[in-house]
Amino acid sequence: MSLLRHIRTCNAWEPARFVPFRRGNARLGLIRRDNAERLRRFPKLFEVSKDTVNLIAEGNAKALTSAVDRAVEELVSERVIAKWRNEFFAVAEHWGAKVHFTLDRGAVPFFGVKAYGVHLNGYRRVGSKLKLWIGKRASNKIVAPGKLDNIVAGGIGVAHGLEETLLKEAAEEAAMPKKLASRAVAVGAVSYRMETKTGLRNDVLFLYDVETPASFTPRNTDGELVSFALMDARDVVKRMRDTEDFKFNVNLVNIDFALRHGVIGPEDPEYLGLVAGLHRPLD
Amino acid sequence: MSLLRHIRTCNAWEPARFVPFRRGNARLGLIRRDNAERLRRFPKLFEVSKDTVNLIAEGNAKALTSAVDRAVEELVSERVIAKWRNEFFAVAEHWGAKVHFTLDRGAVPFFGVKAYGVHLNGYRRVGSKLKLWIGKRASNKIVAPGKLDNIVAGGIGVAHGLEETLLKEAAEEAAMPKKLASRAVAVGAVSYRMETKTGLRNDVLFLYDVETPASFTPRNTDGELVSFALMDARDVVKRMRDTEDFKFNVNLVNIDFALRHGVIGPEDPEYLGLVAGLHRPLD
Repeated sequence: MSLLRHIRTCNAWEPARFVPFRRGNARLGLIRRDNAERLRRFPKLFEVSKDTVNLIAEGNAKALTSAVDRAVEELVSERVIAKWRNEFFAVAEHWGAKVHFTLDRGAVPFFGVKAYGVHLNGYRRVGSKLKLWIGKRASNKIVAPGKLDNIVAGGIGVAHGLEETLLKEAAEEAAMPKKLASRAVAVGAVSYRMETKTGLRNDVLFLYDVETPASFTPRNTDGELVSFALMDARDVVKRMRDTEDFKFNVNLVNIDFALRHGVIGPEDPEYLGLVAGLHRPLD
Repeated sequence: MSLLRHIRTCNAWEPARFVPFRRGNARLGLIRRDNAERLRRFPKLFEVSKDTVNLIAEGNAKALTSAVDRAVEELVSERVIAKWRNEFFAVAEHWGAKVHFTLDRGAVPFFGVKAYGVHLNGYRRVGSKLKLWIGKRASNKIVAPGKLDNIVAGGIGVAHGLEETLLKEAAEEAAMPKKLASRAVAVGAVSYRMETKTGLRNDVLFLYDVETPASFTPRNTDGELVSFALMDARDVVKRMRDTEDFKFNVNLVNIDFALRHGVIGPEDPEYLGLVAGLHRPLD
């Protein structure tokens, strides 16, 4: 089967169903029209028109965070969204830009705010074979329970840096020693925009590779992954072609890895489509 | 200085200045409006309207190749374009698609036909340092004389495969033994679209990495490169920031290499722009 279908899955959204979420000149997200309607009841906070939702509340980031959170709590009580209550994402126009306020991770898709994560490919060379450590997600995960995952992955919470998130998740998810995790090399990013039940995932994943020694076997410590397997990279590609076993966005991370390491080569008729499809134009 | 400027340079074109070059339902290229006007004198070959140039000549690829070549010769005699007379590119809607006819490489930008090349990064690890073999182009090259280049690069002529072109160019440009060149790993592609004096470069470069042993020193045999230097990858990035010393598209190849090997990391404010900017959406 086509590998491009995974890119299509992660980019399935119709711009016409969404309106920009703005504060002044800054576009902070993309809100689905039905969700925008739900915000009309907070007229001191949001100005909802046919083509846009404006955040009109004034004040500093702390004041805005509280004000938006009060609206979010109402939506939670109506079961429109579910808060995570342990992870908070920064709301900014783009990576590194001014943080307007912070938002519970569960509310991020409702507002279609850009979210950032790190994914680590743990690989090992065994003879001429390239192998990848693949984790299996716990069955009680909110997102993609039971699906296959990268060895380490996590969202970048507010005020946490990339390296810090990577080291923390590497320790929690794979019991990876700091010394090994610090050898991870930044290798690029993938991005996608995908409608979900709640709204829109508007994600950028920063990617890292780490070559793991034969002495290292990952072991999960936080309950998010239930097992690990060292799979031949060619089998990972075959399994992506044949099944929906991997978490939706993990397919993109694996495809990027396979393209960078010659596991998927130019003889694949989808090659150029895959190379181009892993990144959305910046906007 | 900004690295993104190199991506902007390679993507400087205004769609409104071009019209599609079609044969039936297939779009084969993009012709600048002034060039389209020049084709009006060949009414049996091209149907030129305000919004399109249609190739209306009938026959098989061989017949079309001769017919278009007669028009090209007239344009050459008027110094609108210069034929290379030794390299011929396939004209097709996209990579791997049906070849409608073949075209002298010098005429490719006039018709804005997709052109494909291979670029090889030759690298070596010296201690903790990552080094890149960089060539210097001869001063008599038609394109980018005297500029810095990858160790091996070449256009993919009609009926030549990717691997074949890579091995041939590796032997000619760098005296790289076949055994070493065969170890090159496919690592992706970059694409760009750039107006030139003659028309439009509409290029895809297939990229390869090869780790060269300490015993190997490249040596040019075809006169296209005059010297090689083993440069620290960080110095390559610095030189791209500070100068226009590299051939325009070699900057993209180097940026892609630097992103994949952690030489440019996410701490660079341009990181996500660079990652996204190296590939045009397929169309």
